[in-house]
Amino acid sequence: MTNESADEFDTIRKLFAPLATSAGARGLADDAALIEGRHVVTTDAIVEGVHFLKGDPIATVAMKALRVNVSDLIAKGAQPRAALLTLIWPNERPAEDIEVFAAAFGGDLAHFGMTLLGGDTTSTDGPLIISVTAFGEPLAERTPARADAKVGDDVWLVGGEIGSAWLGLQLRSGAMQMDEFARGRDEDEARATSESLAGQTPDYLTLPGLPFDAEAAWLMSTYLAPFIRPECADLVARFANASMDVSDGLVADAAKLAAASGVSLRIEATAVPFSIPAERWAFSGGDFRKLITGGDDYVVLFTAPASARAELEATLGAGALRLSRIGAIEAGEGVRVVDLQGDAIPIPNAGFRHKLGR
Amino acid sequence: MTNESADEFDTIRKLFAPLATSAGARGLADDAALIEGRHVVTTDAIVEGVHFLKGDPIATVAMKALRVNVSDLIAKGAQPRAALLTLIWPNERPAEDIEVFAAAFGGDLAHFGMTLLGGDTTSTDGPLIISVTAFGEPLAERTPARADAKVGDDVWLVGGEIGSAWLGLQLRSGAMQMDEFARGRDEDEARATSESLAGQTPDYLTLPGLPFDAEAAWLMSTYLAPFIRPECADLVARFANASMDVSDGLVADAAKLAAASGVSLRIEATAVPFSIPAERWAFSGGDFRKLITGGDDYVVLFTAPASARAELEATLGAGALRLSRIGAIEAGEGVRVVDLQGDAIPIPNAGFRHKLGR
Repeated sequence: MTNESADEFDTIRKLFAPLATSAGARGLADDAALIEGRHVVTTDAIVEGVHFLKGDPIATVAMKALRVNVSDLIAKGAQPRAALLTLIWPNERPAEDIEVFAAAFGGDLAHFGMTLLGGDTTSTDGPLIISVTAFGEPLAERTPARADAKVGDDVWLVGGEIGSAWLGLQLRSGAMQMDEFARGRDEDEARATSESLAGQTPDYLTLPGLPFDAEAAWLMSTYLAPFIRPECADLVARFANASMDVSDGLVADAAKLAAASGVSLRIEATAVPFSIPAERWAFSGGDFRKLITGGDDYVVLFTAPASARAELEATLGAGALRLSRIGAIEAGEGVRVVDLQGDAIPIPNAGFRHKLGR
Repeated sequence: MTNESADEFDTIRKLFAPLATSAGARGLADDAALIEGRHVVTTDAIVEGVHFLKGDPIATVAMKALRVNVSDLIAKGAQPRAALLTLIWPNERPAEDIEVFAAAFGGDLAHFGMTLLGGDTTSTDGPLIISVTAFGEPLAERTPARADAKVGDDVWLVGGEIGSAWLGLQLRSGAMQMDEFARGRDEDEARATSESLAGQTPDYLTLPGLPFDAEAAWLMSTYLAPFIRPECADLVARFANASMDVSDGLVADAAKLAAASGVSLRIEATAVPFSIPAERWAFSGGDFRKLITGGDDYVVLFTAPASARAELEATLGAGALRLSRIGAIEAGEGVRVVDLQGDAIPIPNAGFRHKLGR
């Protein structure tokens, strides 16, 4: 928080001040903040044109910037507590957008029970960039690492499905047309559902030139701002050996967990949770491997001893969170995606990367 | 630390791993880090074309990115301990630059006794951006705020001079020519000094088409990577009522301190510390008001009770740090810069700001 920046931070300070409730935030009026105690800390930036599209609504961009960080805290079994916000704001964007950004970011902070500790803002001729550092309170003595998986562990996903955000991005970016997406669905039913919801969702969830489509809107909304379930943190804190969030595609992230733990991770393809439209798409000619390598899922991948299985499932309660046992940890290395017969399914493209440097 | 990012962070992880010495950093191999205890925390980003020039050496850019954050910690009386690093790296920059960046950033971390906790990297088509979050251990129970100045306090600067970085930027950017800068100096002496040092400094400290000039080189180096003196933190922790670092220009930052404290701050123009070339420039037709409004100084501005004056000066020791009593806190509001007669000097341009939004 340099002074030059703190100065500009005035613009949003006033909007955020009600959320800077911790004494250590000093009302966002100082050059530094104070924190105390044990914290899990994580930092993630999202960049226009890389992690979100230039035309994405500024409100969902704000939410995404916070949530990709909250996702890391949850996956470590920590309760979100506080955040620092650095905004690199394009000169060409209208200043009014800052107010919308602040309102959305502030609303999300409140939703997750977090306070704003401070931040920094600068103008730029380049793309919009939002960098967040988030602090969480660990719910257990031990904070599970990627490296803590044990042979024999079950592999779990909790907090949502795989592939919905990828499908949403394909639709929103125009990479997939509605006729491919809608293959195999009951159009009368889909139309009825969509008509019953039309006008109740923001304009940006309707594709240009097309009637509102409820399924497409839902998938696009998961891409724009992932649904993060903070309740997952408690499950992780109580049961996880290894844990991480899935952001780069299930297969790629599972491979990282396996590599860090020095084990092999088996994924049973039929056990992976998909949303209804994603599953239909895959059963109607779509390649399900794109769903498990697509990225932007922001659910928690964790391993736990098989002996904890019953208690884990009982803890969750009926329907509160989507919990899926998708495989197991074995001796060896790498990720194997297997079919019902246990035969390996080859995965051509195990996850996207934003490469650094030329 | 999303996975997609942690992935790319591999590139520099290997270079940094020796510096990630705290257990909480988890060897930079996890999605989050752990911290414990009381911390002062600050975050600052520097942006190509705004806080540094596109042609600035990547090594000094790395140092500047860390030091502007360390400066905030020092000014709060905290000892630097750890940092998170977020790199938004232009696609057009050669990947080899990353190694130079990492070596310089790592060297600076070691210099300040800090460890790397983690980070995030993304490629971009826009400008290079480095966002750092820094953690410091407060050296006293109380952490001085901007708002803590009391009427009757002395106003101090510690850790360096004012205006050197501004002069360095003018020379480096070509906004000021050497003949204006060199007005009034003994050119034979200057040439002798420069010749005795030529070849011992990096090429980027020589202006294109000109012979190496020792004074210009020194001023440019303070702009490129400010000299930060961590020893200042102890003085702040022991004596400061209010404190902040000077980064936006002495007058602008003094005005912020005065406003936050609800007081008036008097600056005695003749008591402000300048470097020898800056003072000569001001006495040879330069406008000294540009030195005190220019920015990028990164020294500590603090207030302390007049009763502590003798002890404060004795604590410092002879010559260890440049300490200057530049004025006093009075009832009222705003900043008054006064001459030897106590008459106010009008200040036309009280500090630069990187405005946000259009």
